[in-house]
Amino acid sequence: MRQSKLFTKTRREAPADEVAKNAQLLVRAGYIHKEMAGVYSYLPLGLRTLNNIVQIIREEMNAIGGQELIMTALQDKELWSRTDRWDDDKVGNWFKTAFKTGGETGLAITHEEPLTRIMTEHISSYRDLPVYAYQFQNKFRNELRAKSGIIRGKEFLMKDLYSFSKDEAEHKVFYDKAREAYKKVFERAGVGDRTYVTFASGGIFSEFSEEFQTVSNAGEDTIYVDEEKRIAVNKEVYTDEALAKLGLERGKLVEKRAIEVGNIFHLGTRFSEPLGLFYTDETGARKPVVMGSYGIGPTRVMGTIVEIFADEKGLVWPESVAPFKVHVVSLGKEGDDISKTADALYDNLVKAGVEVLYDDRDARAGEKFAESDLLGIPKRIVVGKDAVATGEFEVVERATGKVVKKSRAELLA
Amino acid sequence: MRQSKLFTKTRREAPADEVAKNAQLLVRAGYIHKEMAGVYSYLPLGLRTLNNIVQIIREEMNAIGGQELIMTALQDKELWSRTDRWDDDKVGNWFKTAFKTGGETGLAITHEEPLTRIMTEHISSYRDLPVYAYQFQNKFRNELRAKSGIIRGKEFLMKDLYSFSKDEAEHKVFYDKAREAYKKVFERAGVGDRTYVTFASGGIFSEFSEEFQTVSNAGEDTIYVDEEKRIAVNKEVYTDEALAKLGLERGKLVEKRAIEVGNIFHLGTRFSEPLGLFYTDETGARKPVVMGSYGIGPTRVMGTIVEIFADEKGLVWPESVAPFKVHVVSLGKEGDDISKTADALYDNLVKAGVEVLYDDRDARAGEKFAESDLLGIPKRIVVGKDAVATGEFEVVERATGKVVKKSRAELLA
Repeated sequence: MRQSKLFTKTRREAPADEVAKNAQLLVRAGYIHKEMAGVYSYLPLGLRTLNNIVQIIREEMNAIGGQELIMTALQDKELWSRTDRWDDDKVGNWFKTAFKTGGETGLAITHEEPLTRIMTEHISSYRDLPVYAYQFQNKFRNELRAKSGIIRGKEFLMKDLYSFSKDEAEHKVFYDKAREAYKKVFERAGVGDRTYVTFASGGIFSEFSEEFQTVSNAGEDTIYVDEEKRIAVNKEVYTDEALAKLGLERGKLVEKRAIEVGNIFHLGTRFSEPLGLFYTDETGARKPVVMGSYGIGPTRVMGTIVEIFADEKGLVWPESVAPFKVHVVSLGKEGDDISKTADALYDNLVKAGVEVLYDDRDARAGEKFAESDLLGIPKRIVVGKDAVATGEFEVVERATGKVVKKSRAELLA
Repeated sequence: MRQSKLFTKTRREAPADEVAKNAQLLVRAGYIHKEMAGVYSYLPLGLRTLNNIVQIIREEMNAIGGQELIMTALQDKELWSRTDRWDDDKVGNWFKTAFKTGGETGLAITHEEPLTRIMTEHISSYRDLPVYAYQFQNKFRNELRAKSGIIRGKEFLMKDLYSFSKDEAEHKVFYDKAREAYKKVFERAGVGDRTYVTFASGGIFSEFSEEFQTVSNAGEDTIYVDEEKRIAVNKEVYTDEALAKLGLERGKLVEKRAIEVGNIFHLGTRFSEPLGLFYTDETGARKPVVMGSYGIGPTRVMGTIVEIFADEKGLVWPESVAPFKVHVVSLGKEGDDISKTADALYDNLVKAGVEVLYDDRDARAGEKFAESDLLGIPKRIVVGKDAVATGEFEVVERATGKVVKKSRAELLA
């Protein structure tokens, strides 16, 4: 895309009311717009980045048999009353509103209830199981705190997958697969090496749930990491008893701040029993379906990536999630040789299938480089006088600042 | 996809509380789930269909220079107060709720206000114009009536594009382009021949707005069509004065029921003035930006397609929007020759890049054919004894019932 056509502009100063580094940089670079505290719109560069994260997750969920659907924001009070999660003294972060036709409704905080009800119309026999269904859908949470930028929003995108299995054994097989799929997601998104499976408090049906915690000083959670075993324990279960059960030694654990980027949960029959999701087994017996839930917040992952990789010059994206892979920066003026060389290189790269942002605007080199650093695209190709004279282009790696010279043929290869 | 893995099941009877044909059939075929009146979830087959419609629209919006972004559902009361569209006596179909941190918020009924505000941070000079930005985002409307299935929902998907131009002349150029892009969208979605540019009431800045009305008995609108000129007039402006201005003769017009599937609107400076979206022109003068808005409801388009093409046997999809292009129906049992032939055909088609639903389940032929008709996939390939014996497959066109025989080589070509 030609940058002269991109409607967003960057700005030098962070907005005064943003305290989180991720929001400060994303607003400055024109990736997002703050509508209200904890409520952000995604502008073209931000949406492209977010969609790359979404696509990584989608591929890994499809690979373990997930079927994509999309549920609604508006929720049925009667349904949530049956699982005792409607009342404000049970769940404190609902946004509630009313239909003109009568009756209250709420904005989805999560989607166990509606999906379990949907499944009562499609699951009746052991032959219908197991089933794995997921969506990318906004969640709404009426948070009191909203100071972490896009890491904790009042309206945010969530991938939530739910598993429906015949029994504990079948559930366990998928739960283990989902853990591995999650590891792949975080590896592909570039944060695998600092993301730990972290044991946290469970629920009625299991002693622990598993969180995926990415080490970052911007994190709101405290975890204790065993670097050798590559697992961690959340502060909330950091007790001698829990450590013993998990086979961890207090002496080997290091305290870290971390961001919870995902979690996997054994739900047992917590939702299937009150909502009537039963099946008939091989012997004709009626049994409740065993469920699990598996969440990743793509917007939170995006914020986490910013917190981890950004430097004093601006954003730094891993190639897998970057809105464009290459930033071609022309130092020419319309119609001159430099500009013609840059035009040709841009066309060639686009034809070769490379996602390129092309800074074709008239502006000073220093300004362009500063803006390019702020945008954080992994590779910058500079087209100046030297490139025209020698046929060699300067390629700057955003993450390291490393510069190499490459010919057009090498760039296209 | 193997149908044995698809979690949705079809049902024989329509739900008692659905009066609209589109919702009755889509629920029966397992494409959607009704959460509450006017609130529908999209199950795997429904989401695939919807995504195909979305992708057609996206391609046509990109082709005219649209830049995709995504705004939020939660809206800022203060912003909407400035355009006088917050109060319930001005706009009657808001869902409103409150932040725990204090203050009211509402769920987006449309997005002129937030996008205009975003643009105040990115547009300041004539050099920044024109700009075209669009999104696919849910709208929420607290409707009193919700009896048209997915054609009129309380929560529904909308593509809304907004144009930002220097003056009326620049606006007009894009407005005309958008009209042509809309025609392409409806042609590609299979409803072009019965969709008419329809003049309707305008606003402060233009005498008429233009609606895209698709003729259907399920429509809530009454239009008067000039078949020769391929334009129409909405009942609301069906006056001698308006007809004279549009060069239409009452005698040539035919009254029809129709569904409004899109509209394009000249907004003038209705939003830019109160929200402070001004730019500096070539002479240094400060001027308000001239805006337009351009809407299409992908969920409504999907419902309209059902209303138009469905027959007594079930859904009928045009190929461009169908969730799968081909339905392979095996009449074999696991492990027999028929089943092996069907497996091989399915694998070959998938490898050739065809989107195939493969009914690999053990069931009676009559049941399978009835279900295949209900799902509405454009082509059905039957794999039975004959196919194994002769190497020729029966291909049934869903829309016409026409049957042809084809060899495997012909199918793959």
